[in-house]
Amino acid sequence: MGSKFDVHVLGSSSATPTSKRYPTAQLLNVAERFYLIDCGEGTQIQLRRYRLKFQRINHIFISHLHGDHYLGLMGLISSLHLLGRKNELHIYHPPGLKEIIELQLQLSGTVLNYPIIWTAHRSDVSEVLLDDGNVTVTTIPLNHRIHCCGFLFREKDKMYSLNKTQLTYYKIPVAQFQEIRKGNDAVLEDGTIIPASRLTSGRPIARQYAFCSDTRYSESVIEAVRAVDLLYHEATFLHELLQRAKQTFHTTAREAGEVAAKADVRQLLIGHFSVRYTDVNVLLEECKQFFSNTLCAEEGTIVSIPQRKEV
Amino acid sequence: MGSKFDVHVLGSSSATPTSKRYPTAQLLNVAERFYLIDCGEGTQIQLRRYRLKFQRINHIFISHLHGDHYLGLMGLISSLHLLGRKNELHIYHPPGLKEIIELQLQLSGTVLNYPIIWTAHRSDVSEVLLDDGNVTVTTIPLNHRIHCCGFLFREKDKMYSLNKTQLTYYKIPVAQFQEIRKGNDAVLEDGTIIPASRLTSGRPIARQYAFCSDTRYSESVIEAVRAVDLLYHEATFLHELLQRAKQTFHTTAREAGEVAAKADVRQLLIGHFSVRYTDVNVLLEECKQFFSNTLCAEEGTIVSIPQRKEV
Repeated sequence: MGSKFDVHVLGSSSATPTSKRYPTAQLLNVAERFYLIDCGEGTQIQLRRYRLKFQRINHIFISHLHGDHYLGLMGLISSLHLLGRKNELHIYHPPGLKEIIELQLQLSGTVLNYPIIWTAHRSDVSEVLLDDGNVTVTTIPLNHRIHCCGFLFREKDKMYSLNKTQLTYYKIPVAQFQEIRKGNDAVLEDGTIIPASRLTSGRPIARQYAFCSDTRYSESVIEAVRAVDLLYHEATFLHELLQRAKQTFHTTAREAGEVAAKADVRQLLIGHFSVRYTDVNVLLEECKQFFSNTLCAEEGTIVSIPQRKEV
Repeated sequence: MGSKFDVHVLGSSSATPTSKRYPTAQLLNVAERFYLIDCGEGTQIQLRRYRLKFQRINHIFISHLHGDHYLGLMGLISSLHLLGRKNELHIYHPPGLKEIIELQLQLSGTVLNYPIIWTAHRSDVSEVLLDDGNVTVTTIPLNHRIHCCGFLFREKDKMYSLNKTQLTYYKIPVAQFQEIRKGNDAVLEDGTIIPASRLTSGRPIARQYAFCSDTRYSESVIEAVRAVDLLYHEATFLHELLQRAKQTFHTTAREAGEVAAKADVRQLLIGHFSVRYTDVNVLLEECKQFFSNTLCAEEGTIVSIPQRKEV
């Protein structure tokens, strides 16, 4: 129960797409607000395939400027324009992306019907990119060949649910409900204090999703994603190709499992698979030896993070 | 019989792709040499889907800088690089495309393993872009909102086929075969002249394919595509939306049929359909009233131009 916190996988492939796997893109639904994370070539086609309404996307987060993470953006921006968008679109991006898009708009003779609000991110320190009353989004500096950031989405703290039976029993005035929902105790007319814990059914715990697109194995990433509900981490190669992974600034499936285990996350989603693996289960099996609660990203996969409550 | 002259349709949609229709791209196979014409988003995915070997593409022709005609190019260039290409890639393009691609290469920290040879085309006059011994490619200036060219592919003139029975009968020396294939008469030792027409079975007629991506109805286009074997012409709207077609510099299905009829082409292929038409047969039916030998472009369609011979 509770509001939605769903990750829709739109693309799971690494550098080169195949006929079945698209490059990286995910749509995050937090309480019916939509956040697009990376936007590889074909993202708009995938959004249509899964009947996701892309006019409802107001925030787009791009991790880095390798083509498999952003080449679908220009097409999406253009389609939003052609389909009549008027609302602001916020794009959080590595330096240079604004120039790429603006050059393409200029050369195609396009003046957009809607404003784009550009926010460049840094790759040296973590920073808050967005706090919209629904989620807080913080960057996770990654260790890749070029400027690259992951993103940590944290739901805003929620209020306690009221226990109506108990409120009636103690005849608590409605005027106090809001304070009780915040976790404050109730005070009766005679001064008796009724602890909030007796009047509520536990506060929902703010859910957290960490997205780590392209990176070498990194201790600082482990710290940044500690105890999240769901970690997406790339797992481009099997560990037998560790040297190749290091050369190309990528992670092996075993290392992704180790990151998840050391960070004590609840669940791990792996993706960004090298096209050499026609059966990605070999990556899943290797990873599971180090972190059992692991899923493989597949086009169309939806991972829902359930609402948990404080005990 | 004869060598191949096939048009593979990779995308048939206009500005915005759908889950079924990709933006414009076609692969032309002339005698097992491959020419890519336009390269909308997802072209590399479509090439893989239809098992077309994209390392064999050496020449790419881009008509104009609206996203649905070129946004797949950067991804294709990148994949060719990652898959180890060494051979030159020739790109014929509107001014500005080189800057778009080079900015993206620079920001992704990529130094390509292979050279790109850039040739910008003009939109005011027709010019020869390529003459590689297999085809001659000439531009067709179009009437669109921005700089836009179509392309006319003309097979090189071929030699006559020899009639072996007749050659044996007249005891023609082998040394003369090459001249006879060019259409020259044979001369016997006693001075007797044997006409080439008696020794050959007719010369294959050079096939021609005209590609007209985005354009208003244009009399100059009719002249440029006169009598081609196959004309691809956009047909974005039904004629009831003529005003919309004019405003957006596009053609109606009726107009496309009129162009084909007036130009006296052998066959017409229409595409670039507005997404408003979920059933594109309405466009086909309208067009056929003006030119009956018309086909609809569909993803995966292959149109083969048969080899004809001079009578």
